[in-house]
Parts: sequence; structure tokens; C-alpha cells
Amino acid sequence: MKKPILALSTLLAVSTLASANVKFSDNNGSLGEPVNYPKFQDVLSESELQISDAEGKKGNKEYFALDGDFSGIVNPYFYVDKTSEALVFKMKNDHLRNEVRVHKNFRTDLPDHFYSLRADVEMIDPEASMKNSDSKQDEITFLQVHNKGLDNEGTHNVPHPLLRVVWKRDADGVKGHFWAIIKNNAVICKGSFGKKYKNKNMCKPDVAYSHIDLGKAPTGKTTAFDITVGNKTLSVDVDGANLVKHDIDYWRHLLSYFKAGVYNQFTFGMSEAHFYKLEYSAAEPK
Amino acid sequence: MKKPILALSTLLAVSTLASANVKFSDNNGSLGEPVNYPKFQDVLSESELQISDAEGKKGNKEYFALDGDFSGIVNPYFYVDKTSEALVFKMKNDHLRNEVRVHKNFRTDLPDHFYSLRADVEMIDPEASMKNSDSKQDEITFLQVHNKGLDNEGTHNVPHPLLRVVWKRDADGVKGHFWAIIKNNAVICKGSFGKKYKNKNMCKPDVAYSHIDLGKAPTGKTTAFDITVGNKTLSVDVDGANLVKHDIDYWRHLLSYFKAGVYNQFTFGMSEAHFYKLEYSAAEPK
Repeated sequence: MKKPILALSTLLAVSTLASANVKFSDNNGSLGEPVNYPKFQDVLSESELQISDAEGKKGNKEYFALDGDFSGIVNPYFYVDKTSEALVFKMKNDHLRNEVRVHKNFRTDLPDHFYSLRADVEMIDPEASMKNSDSKQDEITFLQVHNKGLDNEGTHNVPHPLLRVVWKRDADGVKGHFWAIIKNNAVICKGSFGKKYKNKNMCKPDVAYSHIDLGKAPTGKTTAFDITVGNKTLSVDVDGANLVKHDIDYWRHLLSYFKAGVYNQFTFGMSEAHFYKLEYSAAEPK
Repeated sequence: MKKPILALSTLLAVSTLASANVKFSDNNGSLGEPVNYPKFQDVLSESELQISDAEGKKGNKEYFALDGDFSGIVNPYFYVDKTSEALVFKMKNDHLRNEVRVHKNFRTDLPDHFYSLRADVEMIDPEASMKNSDSKQDEITFLQVHNKGLDNEGTHNVPHPLLRVVWKRDADGVKGHFWAIIKNNAVICKGSFGKKYKNKNMCKPDVAYSHIDLGKAPTGKTTAFDITVGNKTLSVDVDGANLVKHDIDYWRHLLSYFKAGVYNQFTFGMSEAHFYKLEYSAAEPK
């Protein structure tokens, strides 16, 4: 028998779903429901889903499983492939997304506090995804460290992620590589808060961001990404090799969080990322 | 014989003085020139003067001795009393100031870095200064820890001081006491950057600020203030007793600096503070 609080929660969930454009269905059982797969249950229980309506306008975003309950959250964009048991994220069109957002907003500056996101990822034919794109960027972001701001309410947040791990079609002739794109300062360079700074040197792309080549993206196999943040350092290991160790002292006032999935920065196509592993962990002293 | 660089510097100084409304003169030797007093030379050499035109409009401010050279910087508002050898700061009217600004913008969060301002201060008849005031605030700020922002260029500065040490006429019936007024968060609560936050709880005066009673201001004698900032802590000692020990972890991204002098938050009067000692020091590991 359900307790009233659960009934209320169900009503709210139904109400949310009813008002949203994103619909959920396992297509008569052909799509695996992610919450049913033990290897993904831990990360999902600590996360929510931020997903665009694929038919909606640029930048649209809806929120689901705000309480970490992913029951019933499955559709042709977000499911587990029953054969490979990969968690599949797909999304159409530019500036649309399909991402698991880990709830924890963590400090990056404390000496004994470390937060990790580990993912084994295969990008499915991203060249084909972009074959009709007319974007200059042509990237798929599939892992992020973003910031919430000074506090959990989002005060003075910086509208730029600290880290995007991307597949990039062409970086000055380097084609089809993974890249770590790191924001090098905590300066707001866009929007009304960025007006004063956006034309200054610290907001120039080459100054504001570091681009670190994480190697050629393989075909038909996964790549293991381990992102660890803590003690004022951002680390990224790729297939066991430490390729990024970045001093993020300048990020010390901001609470940060992880996202995993797909975020499109290309036009007229569909991205698809298969996650064979997705794990979040926190190491905090008692 | 002057080197060209000095000649240029002199020209620039003359040009600045010529365009400013604040004038300097030792009134035929009746006013001591602060830079000639060894006990003030150290702090002055690391500082500039931020002083209002006493006849100018509310909030006006001019800058002198930007290179720490206070030669010739003396007038009836800023001088040394030849008898007492006190460094005198005076200023007329509301929201006008006369302050030495120590140049160093320092981090407050590093474990082995400490910055101190030590002052022996006597407020000269502040009751009389305010007898015609119609302000509700009726304060004279004479020591401050302010912030420059994320960097020495002033990026994303917070337009609120971390600490003001004030003489206050009446705080809910507590009359003529010194107070430490401490900003409790790094939230911008005014101006265009504060629009989003100024009506939120964290910007309410009682939440945004702590008021710590530093005791009754004595008449005819000095009080010793020792302010030390470092290791995420703000400390204020008054006559050798530690009255403030405030966790300023929330201030960890901001570079801070000291000011000493007078800043008026009352109307229709003249403030006067006598500094018998004014010392700045920094302790940084090699």
C-alpha cells in the first residue's frame, strides 16, 4: 500500500509528464528501461534527466526524475540496448541535449574531497551524424563538469562549463578526435553579466579555453574516460592514461557538477552515444 | 640630476593635480606633511590616497600618490598634527571620503598568508560631527577590508566591503560604540549585477551583515585595532582582545585590500580621525 507522500509524488510526476512535450515509452518492450539495469542504478539514483524535445526549438530543455527515480523514463532517445546493454543517448539537431545530471554540487577546492565520473563510451558514427551539418563547431559534448554557482541555489553561476569532453569533427585539420575543452578562468563572458567582460582579453576563445587532444576516437569500440575533480585539480584519464591535470584554483568559489549524455553543437543530424559504463563517486572525509 | 623617467612621472603628477579639484598645501608650514614622518612612511609608500573634494557632490572621489609617493600630499583634510604627531583625516558631508588605500590586493584563503593593518585611532568628538545629521545611519567608517574582485583588474568585484570598522552614533540604543560590520556572503546585492539577488533573503541586511560590538569609543584617548586576514579567517583585536574571529571561506575567490581614514555615512558635518599609528604588514611564505 502506498503512503500518501508517494501518491502525491506520483501525481506530481504525472502532472509534469502531462505538461511536457517529451514522452516516454519502451515501445512494447523493445527498449530497455535504464533503471532496470543494475550497473546504471547507482548513478541514476543520484541524478535527474535533462532532455530536449527533439522536435522542439533550439535550446529547449525539460527535466525528469528530479528525485532520482527513473522508473518509466525510457524512450527512443534514452534507453538501454537490450543486446549490448549499453545506455544509449540520442538527440537531434543543434543545441539540443539528452543528459543525465548528477545532483551533487561539489566543491573543487578542498584538499581531501574528490569527485569522479567514469564512463566507457562509444560514439556511433559521428561523421554520419554531421554529414549535413553547416555548423562551424561540429562537436558532440558527451561529458561535462559544469558549475551551479556560489551555492546550491545557483547564485552568481558562471554560464560556461569548466570541462566539456567532446568528439570534434575537425580541429584545424585534426579530424575525429576526442578533446577536453577547459574554461581557464571564472569570468562570465556572455549574457547580461558578461557585457563588461566579453570583449576583454580573458574572454577571447584562445585565452578563455584550453583544448587538449584526447586522441583519435576509435570505431566499434569504447574509450574509458575517468574525470576526477578535487584539491583544486581537474584530471582526465583516457584509457588509463592521465592526459589532463589542470590547476583549477580559479574555480575555487564555485560548486560544480557532472553531466553525461549528448549535447549537440552541429546542425541537421542525430547524435548517438553508447555508455557501457557510467559511474559517479564521491570521496569525502568523515 | 633627474632621470627622464622621473621627469615624466613628475609631469604626469602635475597634470593629474591640475585637473583635480582637491588641492594640496601645508598652509605655510602649519600642517605636517605625512610623508615626512617616519612612522607613517612605510604604509604610505605602499598606498595611494583616495580623497573626495569636500565641496563636491556626493560620492565624488579623486586619486593621488598612485605610485606610493606622497610627497606634497598635505592639506587641511590630510596632514600630521605637529604637536601630537597624529595623522589626521577629516572630511565633510555624506558619502565623502579621505582614505589611504593600501595597494596590495591579497588572497584571504591561503593557509600561510596573513595580512594585517594595525591602527591606534581616536575619533575626535564624533557626536559633534553628527549633531546636525538627518541620516538614519550616522556612522563614520575608519578602517576597511574591501575586495578588488577575482583579479588585480577588478573582474567581478563585489561592491560591498568585507569589513567596515565604524563609530556609530546609535545602534538600537547602544550609543557611541565602535562596531565591526562584516559582509557574510559574496553575493552582489546592488547595482546591475545585483538586480537578480537584491530582494532575496541573502541580501537582507540582517542576513548579509554581522554587527559585532567593539565597545564604547573612549574620549581623549586612542583605541588599538589590529585587523588580520588570512587562512580563511578575519580577525579583529581591540586593545589586545580578540573580538572578531570570522570564517570567511565564502570570500575565498576575491582579492582583498585595506583602507584607513574616514568615510562619512551621515549628513551636514565634518568627521575627524586621528591615527597615532598606522601600519600594514604581510606575512607570505617564501
